[in-house]
Formats: sequence, C-alpha cells, structure tokens
Amino acid sequence: MPEQDDVFPVEPWCLRETALHEPLLSRSESLLALSNGHIGVRANLDEGEPHGLPGTYLNSVYELRPLPYAEAGYGYPESGQSLIDVTNGKIMRLLVDDEPFDVRYGDLIFHERVLDFRAGTLTRRAEWRSPADRTVRVTTTRLVSFTHRSIVAIEYVVEPVDAAARVVVQSELVANEVLPGPVHDDPRVSSALENPLRSVEHSAAGTSGALLHETKQSGLRVATAMSHLLDAPDGVDVDVRGESFPDLSRVTFTAALEPGQRLRVVKLVSYGWSAERSVPALRDQVAAALTGAEQTGWECLLSDQRAYLDDYWDGAEIELDGDPALQQAVRFALFHVLQSGARAERRPIPAKGLTGPGYDGHCFWDTEAFVLPPLTRTAPGAASDFLRWRYDTLPEARDRARQLGLAGAAFPWRTIDGAECSAYWPAGTAAFHVNADIADAVVRYCDATADEQFAEDIGVELLVETARLWRSLGHYDEAVDEFRIDGVTGPDEYSAVADNNVYTNLMAQRNLEAAADAVARYPGAARRLLVDDEEAEAWQRCARAVVVPYDEKLGVHPQADGFTRLAVWDFESTEPEHYPLMLHYPYFDIYRKQVVKQADLVMALHRRGDAFTAEQKARNFAYYEGLTVRDSSLSACTQAVVAAEVGHLDLAYAYTAEAAFTDLHDLKSNTGDGLHMASLAGVWVALVDGFGGLRDEGATLRFSPRLPNGLRRLAFTVRHHGCRVRVETDGRQATYSMAPAEGHDEEKLEIFHHGEPVTLAPGSSVTRPVPALQPPPRPRQPPGREPLPRQVHDEPPPRRPHRADRGGRSWAARHPESAPHSD
Amino acid sequence: MPEQDDVFPVEPWCLRETALHEPLLSRSESLLALSNGHIGVRANLDEGEPHGLPGTYLNSVYELRPLPYAEAGYGYPESGQSLIDVTNGKIMRLLVDDEPFDVRYGDLIFHERVLDFRAGTLTRRAEWRSPADRTVRVTTTRLVSFTHRSIVAIEYVVEPVDAAARVVVQSELVANEVLPGPVHDDPRVSSALENPLRSVEHSAAGTSGALLHETKQSGLRVATAMSHLLDAPDGVDVDVRGESFPDLSRVTFTAALEPGQRLRVVKLVSYGWSAERSVPALRDQVAAALTGAEQTGWECLLSDQRAYLDDYWDGAEIELDGDPALQQAVRFALFHVLQSGARAERRPIPAKGLTGPGYDGHCFWDTEAFVLPPLTRTAPGAASDFLRWRYDTLPEARDRARQLGLAGAAFPWRTIDGAECSAYWPAGTAAFHVNADIADAVVRYCDATADEQFAEDIGVELLVETARLWRSLGHYDEAVDEFRIDGVTGPDEYSAVADNNVYTNLMAQRNLEAAADAVARYPGAARRLLVDDEEAEAWQRCARAVVVPYDEKLGVHPQADGFTRLAVWDFESTEPEHYPLMLHYPYFDIYRKQVVKQADLVMALHRRGDAFTAEQKARNFAYYEGLTVRDSSLSACTQAVVAAEVGHLDLAYAYTAEAAFTDLHDLKSNTGDGLHMASLAGVWVALVDGFGGLRDEGATLRFSPRLPNGLRRLAFTVRHHGCRVRVETDGRQATYSMAPAEGHDEEKLEIFHHGEPVTLAPGSSVTRPVPALQPPPRPRQPPGREPLPRQVHDEPPPRRPHRADRGGRSWAARHPESAPHSD
Repeated sequence: MPEQDDVFPVEPWCLRETALHEPLLSRSESLLALSNGHIGVRANLDEGEPHGLPGTYLNSVYELRPLPYAEAGYGYPESGQSLIDVTNGKIMRLLVDDEPFDVRYGDLIFHERVLDFRAGTLTRRAEWRSPADRTVRVTTTRLVSFTHRSIVAIEYVVEPVDAAARVVVQSELVANEVLPGPVHDDPRVSSALENPLRSVEHSAAGTSGALLHETKQSGLRVATAMSHLLDAPDGVDVDVRGESFPDLSRVTFTAALEPGQRLRVVKLVSYGWSAERSVPALRDQVAAALTGAEQTGWECLLSDQRAYLDDYWDGAEIELDGDPALQQAVRFALFHVLQSGARAERRPIPAKGLTGPGYDGHCFWDTEAFVLPPLTRTAPGAASDFLRWRYDTLPEARDRARQLGLAGAAFPWRTIDGAECSAYWPAGTAAFHVNADIADAVVRYCDATADEQFAEDIGVELLVETARLWRSLGHYDEAVDEFRIDGVTGPDEYSAVADNNVYTNLMAQRNLEAAADAVARYPGAARRLLVDDEEAEAWQRCARAVVVPYDEKLGVHPQADGFTRLAVWDFESTEPEHYPLMLHYPYFDIYRKQVVKQADLVMALHRRGDAFTAEQKARNFAYYEGLTVRDSSLSACTQAVVAAEVGHLDLAYAYTAEAAFTDLHDLKSNTGDGLHMASLAGVWVALVDGFGGLRDEGATLRFSPRLPNGLRRLAFTVRHHGCRVRVETDGRQATYSMAPAEGHDEEKLEIFHHGEPVTLAPGSSVTRPVPALQPPPRPRQPPGREPLPRQVHDEPPPRRPHRADRGGRSWAARHPESAPHSD
Repeated sequence: MPEQDDVFPVEPWCLRETALHEPLLSRSESLLALSNGHIGVRANLDEGEPHGLPGTYLNSVYELRPLPYAEAGYGYPESGQSLIDVTNGKIMRLLVDDEPFDVRYGDLIFHERVLDFRAGTLTRRAEWRSPADRTVRVTTTRLVSFTHRSIVAIEYVVEPVDAAARVVVQSELVANEVLPGPVHDDPRVSSALENPLRSVEHSAAGTSGALLHETKQSGLRVATAMSHLLDAPDGVDVDVRGESFPDLSRVTFTAALEPGQRLRVVKLVSYGWSAERSVPALRDQVAAALTGAEQTGWECLLSDQRAYLDDYWDGAEIELDGDPALQQAVRFALFHVLQSGARAERRPIPAKGLTGPGYDGHCFWDTEAFVLPPLTRTAPGAASDFLRWRYDTLPEARDRARQLGLAGAAFPWRTIDGAECSAYWPAGTAAFHVNADIADAVVRYCDATADEQFAEDIGVELLVETARLWRSLGHYDEAVDEFRIDGVTGPDEYSAVADNNVYTNLMAQRNLEAAADAVARYPGAARRLLVDDEEAEAWQRCARAVVVPYDEKLGVHPQADGFTRLAVWDFESTEPEHYPLMLHYPYFDIYRKQVVKQADLVMALHRRGDAFTAEQKARNFAYYEGLTVRDSSLSACTQAVVAAEVGHLDLAYAYTAEAAFTDLHDLKSNTGDGLHMASLAGVWVALVDGFGGLRDEGATLRFSPRLPNGLRRLAFTVRHHGCRVRVETDGRQATYSMAPAEGHDEEKLEIFHHGEPVTLAPGSSVTRPVPALQPPPRPRQPPGREPLPRQVHDEPPPRRPHRADRGGRSWAARHPESAPHSD
C-alpha cells in the first residue's frame, strides 16, 4: 500500500490523487466525491470500472428493508430504510479502435484526479496506451452543481496522441448496478436491497435519454435524464445514436480522430424523484431541469460553481500558518461539510453525507451536535434547512412518542424519512439526548442568526415538543425536589441505559429552559401549541431540579449515576488489535465497566460549560482522558476543545489532527463506505471552539484564543446576526474585526476576549493580548490509545514530483497547452 | 367457551375431560399430555384430527435455526435450537364402513378422556354415530412408560353398537406433520423448522413398521418403530397389511364385526435417537426396545406403570382437607413434574417439560429454581440426573465464559444442548444468576441426599466453575472491601442490566461459600480442578464483601442499586388489558420504573432468608407486593412462601391457588403451548415451603407449619437422607413422623418446629402446638393485579353428572361391563 502523502500530496486548495491504486479505490471514491446535498456521486471512474463501490445517491431516496429480530419486543421498528444506489449518470465508456479504455489493461502512462475546493469540480487527466498500442489522452471534469440543484455535469475530452484512432464514447444512464459483495449479512435484507429499482419507462432520442424507475417497497419514483453538447474538430464526422432498455439508456458518439484532434462531449444529467408526483410530472421535471442547464451551458455552470464557493469561503475560511497538511485538511473538511448540506433543503444530512452507503445513509444526532455548529456559523441557510427537515418530521416523532408512552415528540436515533430505524434500542431509542441536541441546535441557530421568523414558525414548536418529551420522560420527585431521567443512554455508546446521564440531564435542562423562554417570547405560538402557564412553569421546575450526580470522593462528575463505582476496564491486558472494543467484547461487559467510547461527560463540559467550575472541568477532563478509547470518530474534536480550554494545548492539537485526518488517512479503516461528516465538521469545532475558544451560548460571542506549539497563526471568520466576525491570533495576541450585516453599517458588536468585553465597530480592528497560561500536568490516556502527537511541519515538505505508474513528468509539464480548470 | 369445571370436574386422582370442545383442544392436549421425561406425547386424538397442535417430542431432539439480528453484536449466538415435532407414533385412524371416524362429522354421543395420576395412563372412551348411521364405541388407553424409557403403548378397542360394521384400523407412524400457522414470524426461521426431518429409510412388514429420519442442520438421527398385538373375536378374520413411504409407515387391520364384537389392537412404539450412532445401530436399538416391550406385554406395562407411581406417591403425596379442587390440582401438578423429569436421564427438563413447543423447548433457570426443589425431595434420582446434564454441558459453558471474557463456566440462559440460544442479551446472557441457581441446586441436592459420590464427582466441579465465574464477573474493590456485581439482570424481567441485584449477589455469595467449603471437604477434587489456597480464600473474601444495597430511608432493600429511587409505574392509568406489560410497553420504559414482573427481591427473601431479619422480610415483602404484577408464572409460588412466612396466610393461599391453577384454568392463555412446569412445581413449593414452612438450607430440616382459613389439614412427606419425613398439621398443632432409610432403622433425626428442635425416631410421632400468629396488616398489590381470593370449598361441590354432547348418562352407568383402567 502506498503512503498517504505519495498519493495525496499536501496542497492548499485541492486534494490531488497522483496515481491510481486499485485497493485504494473505495477510499478515493469517498474522498473525491461530489455532492450538493441533494445529489451525491462517488468518484467512480467515468468508465465505471474498476471500482471500489459504485455510488450515486439522491437525498432521501431509500428502500425499505425488513428489520429481523430473533426475539422481538414492543415498539421495535419493523422496517428499516437504506439509502440506495440510484441510476448512475456519470458513466462514459470509451473504445479506442474497439479496445475498451480500462486502466487494468494496457499501460496507464499518467493518471491524476484533482478535487478543487474553490472550483467545486473533480478533474481527471489520464494518458493511456491500449494493448493495441494506441495512446489517448482523456480529460474529464465533473461537477454536481450548487446552483442547479438537480444537475450533474461532465466535460469529457478525448484525444489520440501518437496515431489516428477511431474513438467511440458511450454515455449512459445505468440503473441497478451490481454492487460488490452481499449487501447485508441477512439474506432477507440483501434481497430487499438488490436491484431496488423497477423500470417504469425508458427512452433515447438524438443525444438525449432518460430512465424512470420506482422502488419496490418505499414507493418512490426516480427519474434521470441526460443530454449532450458535442464539440468536434472541423471536418470530423461524429456519428450519434441512442438506444434504451429498462435499466440502460445510452447515447453513442463515434468519430475517427487524427493525433491532436479532440472530441469533447459535455454531458448534462438531471435527477428528480418523488413519492407523490406522477410519471408525466416527474418526466417533465427532469426535462425542465435539463433545459435549464443546457441554457446555462458548461462554462457558466463552472463559473457559477466557483462564484458560489467564493462566497462560501469568504465567510468560512480558516487560515493556519505552520501546518500546511492541516491547512489542507481543514479546507477539505469544510468543502465536504458544505457539500453535505448546501442544497439538502429540508432533507436530512446523513452521517456520511451523500458520499457512501455507510450507516445505511441514516441521519443521526451527529448532524445537530457536530455538523450544524460550523454550518450555522458559515452557511446558516443550510443549518436552517436542516432544522426545517426535523420540523417536517414532527408527525413521525409525535407518533413515536405516543408509541413509547411519552408526550411531545421523540425524534429517531437513526432515520432517513423521520421514522425510527434503530433495531437495538439500548444504543438507539434509549439515546433520547438526540431530542435535546435538536433543541440545542435550534437555540444555537436562533442565537447566531436572530432569525425571528424561523424562531416563531419552526423553533418554538421544536422546543415545545422536545420539552414535553423530557417532562414525561423524566421523573419529578416532589419529596426531594429532584428531576431525574432514568434508564437512558448518553453519547458514550460503551455505556447504556443508565440513570441521570450528566450530558443528557444538562442538555434536557437547557431544552426545558429554552422552551419556557420561547413560549414567553412568542405568546402566539404558545397559544397555537396549547402551552399554558402550568406547563411552562413545570418545565422551569424540572429544569431547576434536574439531578447532576457528583462523586464527592473523587471530586469528579460520574458520567451517570454510579459510573465511577464501576470496575475500570482492564486496559493493560487489552491487545491493540482488540480495538474497537465492541467488535471484540460483548456489550454486557463493556457497559458495566469504566470505559468510554467517545466524549460524553467531556461533551457536557463543552456544550454545558456554564454548569461546571474551571476546577471541575480540569479534574473531569483528566479523569475521563484515562478512560476514553476514541473508538468513535465523534470524540477527538470534543476532546480537542476541552483540552484547549483546560490548558492542554498540545494535546488539543493532537486531537484536532486526529479529527482532521480521520478520512484523509482512513484512521477508522472505513472511509471507503463514506466520509465521517461529523469528524470533518469537528475540525472546525476543534479549531474555532478549541483554539479560538468560541463559546456562543446566548446571543454573545465569547472567544479565548490560544495556540499550541507549532501553529504560528490561526484566523477564522464566523457569521453572526448577518455580520462576519474575523478572529486572528498568533498565540500571543488576538485581533478582532467585523464586516457588518447589509444595511447595518454603523452597528457595533460586543464580544468577549478571554472573559473581557471588547466592542467591535465596522471597519476597524481591535487587538488584545492573550493571557499567559500555566499548563497543567498532562493527563494520561489508556495505554495504546494516546493520540499521535502532531508533528510540527514548519514549512511544507519539499514538493515531490507527481508520481505516475510510468514516465514521471507531470501532466502540466508535458502538456502546457492543456490548461487545467482548477489548480 | 364452557366453564372449566363443566369440562374438568373436581376429582381426587385424575383429570377427567367430560366433553370435547374444539377451541379447547390445544389446552387439553397439554393438560392431558403423557411423558416420561424422555418421550413426550401431547393428548392428540388417536385419529390425528381435529387437533390444536400435534406434538410428539424426544428430549433433546431439536433443529438448528438462524437467529437473525438487524444489528448484531459480539458474542450474540448465531443459531438457535428448537424442539421439533418428531415422528407421530400415536396415530390410529378408524374407518367404519368406509366412513372415517372424525368427531367433527356424524354424532358424538359420548366422549370422555381421563388422565389417571396413579395409573399413569390417558384413557379415552367415545361413542360415535357415523353420518351413515353406524354407531361404534372406541376405547383407547395410552401410556408413555416410566419403566421402558423408549416405549409408547396404546390399547385400541373398537366395537360396533347397533349393527354389523366393517372396521378398518390404520395404525401409523407419520413424520413431518403439518403444524398449524407459521412456525415463526421470520420466514427464514420458519423454513428452517418446517419439515425438519429428512427420510433415511422406511419399512413395513407384517404388523411392524419403522421410519428412520435425520434432521437437516443439527445432524440428529431419529428412529421410530412399531409393532402390534391383535385380539379379535373368535371366527373374525382380520386382514393385516403394511406399507411404507418416506414419511409414513402404516399397518392396516380390517375386520367385519357384529354388534358387541370387539377388535382390540395393542400398538407398541419405540423411539431412539442419536447424534453419533449409525443407521444400523439405531435401527437395532428401536427393534430391541420393541422386543423388550413385546415381552413385557400390555398388562405388565400397565402394572409396572402403576407400581412406579405407587412408589412415587408414597414419598411425594400432599394431602389437603378443605379444598378438593386444590387437592386435585396439587396431584395434577406433581404428576406432571414427575413426568417432566422421571426418565430425562442426563438430558434437560424444559420449561414446558415435553408437553408442548413453548419457549422452543428450552431449559431455563426455572428447572433449578422451581422444579428441582420438589424433585430433590420427592424423586431425588431425577434431580441428580438433571444436574448431571448440567455437568455434561460444562464444556459449552466454559466456552461461553471464554467468549464473554470470563473465567469458569457461564451456563446458558436458554438451551437444549448446552449452547446459549438467547438472542436478547439484556434478558438472557446478562441474567448470570442462572449460574448461582445451578450451584444452589447442587448444594440443596447434596444437603437433602448426602450423596457423597455425586458431591465429589459432579458437585464440586459445578461449584468451582460457577464460583470462578462470579469472581471474574464481580469486582472486588480493595479500598472499600466491597465485592460488586455490576450490569447484570436478576430474576425480574421488568428490570435489566442493573448493579448489585440483591438476589444475584446473595446467591453468588452462597455459590462462592459453597465452592470454598466443597474444596475443603474434597481436597482430591480440588487438586484435580487446580484450586489452590489463594483461589479458595479469594472466594471467601468476595463472599464476605458482597454488596447488599439497602435503602435506609425507606427501610427496604432495593432490588438493585438505585431501584427504589426510580419512578413507580403508573398502575392507576394502566388498563387491565395492557397486561402483560411487555406486550404493550417498550422495554426501555418498563426497565426504568419501579415495576416487578416476578418475585426478585422476594425470591431472595425465600432462598436467602438467613440474610434478612424478620422485620426486613415483612417490610420488604409489603413494599414489593405493591410493585409486583405477576406477568410471569414464576412469581405466585414465591410470593406464597414469603407471604406465609411473614404472616399473610390468606394471601399465601390465594397465591398458592394461582400457581396451582395456572394451567388448569389457563391463566396465562398459553397452556396450549405446553404446561408451565415451574408453576406446577411451585404448587409444591407454596404448600411445603409456604404452609409447611420448610427451610432446608444446611443439612437440617426446619418446619414452621401454619394453615390459612379454609384449609383444615395439610400433610406431606419429604425425602431426606433416605428417610421419609411426614408432616401433618391442622393449623393448631403439627405432628411429625419418619420412615427411616433402608438399613438405618434405629437412626434418629433432629428437625426444627417453629425454631424449636424436635427429635424424630422411627415408628413414633411427635406433636407440637403451632404458635399463635398476630396477622400483620395486609399489603396492597397494584390495582387490578391482586390475586383472586381463594374461595373456601368446605365440601366438594355436588358432583355434576358427566356432560356429553348428547345423551347424559355416564359411560360407566351405561356400560357396566366396561371396567375402566383408571378412575
């Protein structure tokens, strides 16, 4: 296996894959995936094969599958949902003098793919000699449009190099692709998910084609249409013909080219789906989207894409000096976070975005807890859209609460369409904290945007229905004035079904308080939701009385009642290859020991820092460091934030890097199934909340910037009430400035720097010194589970020439005429 | 639906079904089932139809089936085991002038079935008029031999009543019977269990026939053979012919009979099965068993059966004055308990015995905790055989412990062959108390029998391996000298995965102490098992330090850590039809509330009474009465015992009756799936440990007899060290006597009466007064879950004439010549 840096060199604004390695294909397909949140396409090769895992996804297009139970129980969901691989519109096969272009045969002289974070494109450049000794250059550029939500566009250019050749380009739509391996261990589940699409109609005419399918169980219709713009050298005849079958629509372009002559085909693909709309309506929808894209044209699609991203980066960019690899990773991360949500538009943001089928394409609490904080501060529209999706699923959440004997709304642990799909309740349904995480995201969004309309139309109802859940789920004991929440599972999946999980209780407290505040602020909404004084007072009473267990003897908070009395996991005897523990030890054993999969109490220190003293934070952090094995990708960023807060800056740096390289270095060995969206978003959290020290509870921004050894400068921008607030620090001092919201050119903004108020005015900057820090003794992690210390790369390592399977000159050096679209 | 008493009148020594009701067939088939613990046959009609559920079982003949998981986890068992319906040898069809005898057609003039507890037979008498107006009498008697382990025998007698008739009797072996309804909700599981037998060979010759099958997955071979003895009136020619097919072997008898002439066929069926033995060996085995039974002959099989039972009842009988229905129920219960274990012989005793397919035919802790106490005191050989079966499964239990990361042996929660079949670990694997229950049964058996050979060969190893489990499962915290057992499930299935379940901890304590004692007493065995001083001392240390949580404020023991702080279930709002709760509420909700499915802490009060003061027992009992809903049949008998101990005699009586009538009155609405063996055994426990006040921890018998209003007299016998100790009380005084063990005619026995020592000598009796009781205030149960108060029937109700579908005279009255085999 080649080294990471050999294949993906460090560059500031792109991810460049310098060579193809078949065993790494799955990983590359995820890393280089394109998405706008509505459509997702894995970076499968144009010609379809070889592949790791073919994947084209439409947000919320899923198939139902049985959830089998050997011993069923009341309230267990009977069917699950799986994101399906829909019609593949990116297939463009090439024949060179009847020899299929296939990198596994002949000689691949050069191969490079570049994901450009500013252009929003994936460009591929290949030079290939066929077994019959014909050499061609193929250059393709692919985008999933941020501005045309339904459109995937591909520019395909082929050129014979050393001799004339007859080239045939087959541009296709392919449904029901064969996926490698069994889809699921259970044959019943597999059979439900194999060939999930049933053909409704198919067509091909001129340079156009279309396929219309429906899913068998979930009753969704999916339409895909394509059209092509052709560009051939003068005097070259191109034969065009189309044909279609139930699962295939194909347009074939044939031309005889001399060396240096290029055939260029721009393929536009539009996707549409619906559970409601008729076949003609759907057919028209994709045709219309195609027409719109044709009118826009390839060049304009490209420039719109870049303009969209320019605007994004203007408010989202994070600059780092001293660690070019981390700089690249941050941009990679933010690019993918944007891709996951940009045009999701009242649809979920799955844990893997639309980059792979991992976790069945389900959306979890990850989105509220990890992905929404950066989106709220960099692309607030996407955050709002996501919360509107949660709002749209309130009917399912209310039904689920009724089924569980609870009031209000019980949002699902994992879902695509709003219905609970979790088949193991101790680590699913019992993780009620998802409801408080949703409420917290609502409060955070409202505080960050002051979006009154959202608050009144959407926010209040989400807060009220989740507060109602907590009141019915908890147990107010009048005799001792305590509000207890028993038998629930917190964030840490190595504990389950415990009483008074501190994170859950504190987040529920915030939820209850926020609901009481909201109904006071929006009395109309309160009336609409039938909230009376008794109810609002009960929320306040429960919030006030919420139990927060504390271990007086150890001086730390147990993660839940009794946690610190449990036996500590025998880390010394645990072999390194026995991590992640849940694959090598039974749940019963993991649950009853002190061992933490992912930040839980430490997450409470971050999200509810107001509930702890500085000393408690330091002691708690040190205690849980010794127990946390990070078998989840949802841990490192939170540990980074709290490590930074309690003064362990180098440790925070190590955790930040771990979050940042989770996918780039495939630390969990499953990047091939899709990217870890929460971990990617966590890089932002680690840098902004960690080294930037951002705390934004309430409508005020508080910063406490500090830098670890190795980082010379950190600068970032966050959006707040329409302003853009920029923070820049070199570790010794911090400089704040703001760009005001449109129409509020005179408005000032009060923020805090290390607890001191600072007033920002448009157009000027304020610099304050960073207070000195006495670093506390570094805590210990379980043996073998320490994060890798971050190696300080003061300068970027000397740039290696791009490697290729043979040859060695870079594409640009050898083909100065081939101006890249992005670099 | 007819009233219970209309169909099953109260009689002292039998269960008589006076009429056939198709909707009640399943229930009757269970109630009237015959078994010797090796073979079980449900009381299906001879002619096979109509049936509730056909069932013929061989102990440990099961098929493997997949255990599906929507979300699997480490250590989850992959395949389960299901007891299968094997070849049905009891089919005897009758044609009367070409009209099949079928109670659904023509007129059933009379129909009666009698299960005789002293004869060990099921007798059926029917008089039927065919649609063609031919009337026949059919009398059949069936037994599953206690003395010939492999033999089922049937005497079939048919006689035309009013006109000559040609009768054809088809005696059959039928494999792969069609069972009603889907076998399982999951189609994969169903398909594994439908037609589980694959034919290996089949034969028919003369009056004999045989079928040999094997199971598809579990690799077991099953052989069934039959032969017949024919008895026809002089001058009547009987045509006999045999034929066989893969799933059918048939011998047909045809004769023309005048009115009053009887054709009598005695059918002998022998069963054999093996996972190891070859086809020829198995073929010979069933042939040999058949030859043995032929030599014994029908009359002798009958008399041997009666002699076996005479001996059993001599040491097992319980006499009651004042409640004839309960008297009948007790004998019914003890008869079935004996049937479940008599000849199980190192095979499991399933929760339903061999009376039905309920719980997949699995054996649970029920057997040790409920069935073994009466077996140990009435049929100790059966108790010893069962514990030898557990011993034989030590390899599987050691493997399971290794898989779970534990030392020693982890016995399965549910199994047939010793491998864990529990697919829901919080209520399966986590219920580790099964290991302490096994150890307790070992100690109890040794104390009751003084069987030194068993103790040294079998007992020590079971105690040592379970003690090793506890030591590794628990957590000895040196700092506070506490031994904690966290994250386990106690008997109450409405709580799961809690810390320091009192029952579990106290039973583990006994287990650890018993292991330490045993290795001291049997140093040879200790050496063989590599137990050194350190290990034995560690067991003692853990036992001494075991945590027993106590709620000082309430003055009661919480069932487990924190239990008494949980919200109390909202009983007031729970509709009566929402019981059992687990079918109407999710586990997560049930687990986190104070609601008790079945005695748990109260079971600790019974089994570890030495660990509680009398005041604690009274307070604990009253507290848990208010929380216990008895959604399990494993509760009433324990509540009866402790209610009696703390002075609630009428309440104890009500619980005793509930245990006694669980199946006779189908209180759980599932008697059709098989009898509740633990509840049946629980009647003995309720009467002997409850009203008899037997406590036998250590090698001494302690009695504290008391009677509730309504019971005028209770007498019972228990076996102890080879003696039989008889206790008789009228509630005011108690009389004790003993029959010495063979060869110990002079030996005296010291027992205790209400705490006072009493010395018994062979041949004389001792009478002592029963101390007065100040009854405490009666505790309250959850509303609607109170046990039915036991109505006092001072005299048996006036005997109704047997009802029949038409006519009305009893069989005996109308056919004085037909001497019944049992009445």
